[in-house]
Amino acid sequence: MPEQTVRWAGGLDGHIQIIDQTLLPAEFKVLALQTAEQVWEAIKVLRVRGAPAIGVAAGMGVVLGIRSAPDDEDEVLERVAKTADYLATSRPTAVNLFWALERMKRVADEHRGEGGAAIKQTLLAEAKDIRDDDARMCRTIGQAGQHLITEGCGVLTHCNAGGLATAEYGTALAPMYRAHELGRHFRVYADETRPLLQGARLTMWELGQAGIDCTLICDNTAAVVMRQGKVDLVIVGADRIAAGGDVANKIGTYGVAVLAKHHGVPFYVAAPSSTFDLSLDSGDAIPIEERGSEEVTHGFGRQTAPDGCKVYSPAFDVTPASLVAGIITERGLIEKPTRERIAEVLG
Amino acid sequence: MPEQTVRWAGGLDGHIQIIDQTLLPAEFKVLALQTAEQVWEAIKVLRVRGAPAIGVAAGMGVVLGIRSAPDDEDEVLERVAKTADYLATSRPTAVNLFWALERMKRVADEHRGEGGAAIKQTLLAEAKDIRDDDARMCRTIGQAGQHLITEGCGVLTHCNAGGLATAEYGTALAPMYRAHELGRHFRVYADETRPLLQGARLTMWELGQAGIDCTLICDNTAAVVMRQGKVDLVIVGADRIAAGGDVANKIGTYGVAVLAKHHGVPFYVAAPSSTFDLSLDSGDAIPIEERGSEEVTHGFGRQTAPDGCKVYSPAFDVTPASLVAGIITERGLIEKPTRERIAEVLG
Repeated sequence: MPEQTVRWAGGLDGHIQIIDQTLLPAEFKVLALQTAEQVWEAIKVLRVRGAPAIGVAAGMGVVLGIRSAPDDEDEVLERVAKTADYLATSRPTAVNLFWALERMKRVADEHRGEGGAAIKQTLLAEAKDIRDDDARMCRTIGQAGQHLITEGCGVLTHCNAGGLATAEYGTALAPMYRAHELGRHFRVYADETRPLLQGARLTMWELGQAGIDCTLICDNTAAVVMRQGKVDLVIVGADRIAAGGDVANKIGTYGVAVLAKHHGVPFYVAAPSSTFDLSLDSGDAIPIEERGSEEVTHGFGRQTAPDGCKVYSPAFDVTPASLVAGIITERGLIEKPTRERIAEVLG
Repeated sequence: MPEQTVRWAGGLDGHIQIIDQTLLPAEFKVLALQTAEQVWEAIKVLRVRGAPAIGVAAGMGVVLGIRSAPDDEDEVLERVAKTADYLATSRPTAVNLFWALERMKRVADEHRGEGGAAIKQTLLAEAKDIRDDDARMCRTIGQAGQHLITEGCGVLTHCNAGGLATAEYGTALAPMYRAHELGRHFRVYADETRPLLQGARLTMWELGQAGIDCTLICDNTAAVVMRQGKVDLVIVGADRIAAGGDVANKIGTYGVAVLAKHHGVPFYVAAPSSTFDLSLDSGDAIPIEERGSEEVTHGFGRQTAPDGCKVYSPAFDVTPASLVAGIITERGLIEKPTRERIAEVLG
C-alpha cells in the first residue's frame, strides 16, 4: 500500500510530493510539485491519476496557487477561485477533482473575515484533511469489502484503483489488502489496461510489493480466465457514479462487466462517497474524456499503427447499474444499486 | 490486398518471398527464405502468420528442405518426411500448417516410382498450387460473404485475417474487399489485438492501403462501440475449427463473441475448408499455444510490467459454436453451424 502517492511535505512554504506514475514500474521517483501549474500538468499527463488521488492533488494544488498571494483576504479568496477554476480544466471525468475543489472554495468562504493569512493556513490544513480522510475512507472500504475475498478465491481487476490511485490503500484493491492482512490466500488477475497500461505498470507493481499473488493478462484475455472458472468476482474502481448507480470508470470496465454477467461472475465497484454525482440521473450524462491517438499508435516508444490512421480512444466508459452486483463505499456495501438504495446509504 | 505475403520466386533453385510482418507498419520489407530452417524461424516469430499463410509457407518450406538432397528417390522421400516433421514443430494451433504438410507428403507418396528429380519438381508445383488454391479460395470466401457487408454498415474485426494472413485477399477481410470492389461504403473497427498488435499493425495497414474506412480501437473498447450501435456485425478468421463448429482463433476472439451476443450483433467466422479439423469433436481438444511473457511485459521495446511478474498469455482462445452466427467458407456460408450442417457443406 504505497503511502507516498500524494502528500504534503512541510508547512505553507512546503510542496506536494507525488510518485511519478508515468515512470513505474521501471523507475520509482518522487517528484516535488511547487506550483499549481505543475499540479495541472501532473494530473493532465497522469503522473498522479486515479479519481481519489486526483482530488487530493487538486486540493493541495489550490494551496500552491494561493500561498504567494498578498495576505489581503479578498485577494486570497479571488486566487482560490481562480486556481480552482484552472485546476478543474486538467481532466473532465473524475468527479472527485471537482468535489475537492468545491470543498476548498467552500472552506475558504466559511472563513471569510479571518484574514488572508489565516485562510491560507486553514486551506493547507483542509487539503491535508482531504488526504487523510481519503486514506481513512479507503481503509473503511477495505473493511466493508473484505468478506467478498474468500479463502482460495480468484479476483479480477481492471486498471489501477489501488494505493497509487488514492492517498493510500486504494478502493478496488482495499478489500484485497484487508483480506491479505487477515491472512487469507487468493489470486488476482490484473487486466493490463490499454492504452496506458495502468494494470500492468501500477496494479502489478503495488500488489507485488505487498506480496499478493497476482497474474498479468492482456485485456482481451479476461473472457478466457472467466470461462476457465478462475474468477469468482470482479472488483474495479470508479471515476464517477450517477444517482442511479451507473458507473464511469476506465475504458474496458463496461466490457468486463458484460463478460462477468455472461459467466455468472459478480461485478463489484469500490469507491468513496465523493465519487457519486447525485446531480446526474444516468451515466449517459457523464462527460467522457477522449485521449490523443498517440497513446494507442505510439504508446510503447515504438510506432505500432500506420501513420495518420484513425483512432477512437475514449479514456472511460459507463457500466449500467444493471450489471453491478454492489458498490463498496466507506458507508457500507450497496447491493444491487438503485437510486433508492444509493440515496439511503449516502443520505 | 497484398499479393506478396508469401510466394515462390523462380524455379527449383529459387526461394520463398515473404513480407516480414514483424516490421509493419513502420517498414515494408520483402525477405527471401532459402532454407527450411529460415521458414521455421519465420513462422515461429510471426514474420509470416495467419493460418492459411502459414500453410502456404510450410508447403514451400518442404521444397527448400528437399531440393539439395541427392536425386535418389528414397532419399528424397525421407527428406520430405523429415522436413515436414520439423516444420510441424514451429507452431501448434493452426491446423492449416499440418494440413499443408500432409498434402505435400501425400503427393510425394503418390509420385513414388517417378524418381527423386521428378518428385522435387512435382512438390514445387504442388506448393505453388497450395498458394494459388488459397488465393482462389479467399476470393470465393469474399464472394460468399460480401452480401453481409451492406451499404453504410459497421463491421468489427479482431487480429488480422486479411491478405497478410493468406496468399492474398484474406478470409475475414475478403467479404470487405469484395464489398469495396462492388462500390459499397462501410466502416471497419479494428481491434488492435494485444499482445502482438496484428490489428493495429497489419489490418489497419492493409485496409488503409485499399482505401477502406477503418478506425483503430484498443481491444477493451469493442464493447463500447457495440453499445453505441456502431457495429452491425463482427467477422473474424480462424486457426482451427472443430467438427461441431467451435472456433480457435486469436486470443480475444471469444470475448468479442460474448460481447457481440450481449449486444445482439451477429458474429461471423471466415475460413477456408482446410481450417476445419473434423477429427476433433469439440474446441476443448484444440491445443492452445502459450506465448512467452515478454510479449506482454516488454512488447514494444520498453518495460511495461514489473520484473519477473507472472503473466498468462495464451495465443488463442476457443469460441463455442453457440456464439457463431455463421462460418463463411469457399463452399458457401454455413449458418448457425452444427456438426450436421458442417458435414453437409464440407462432405
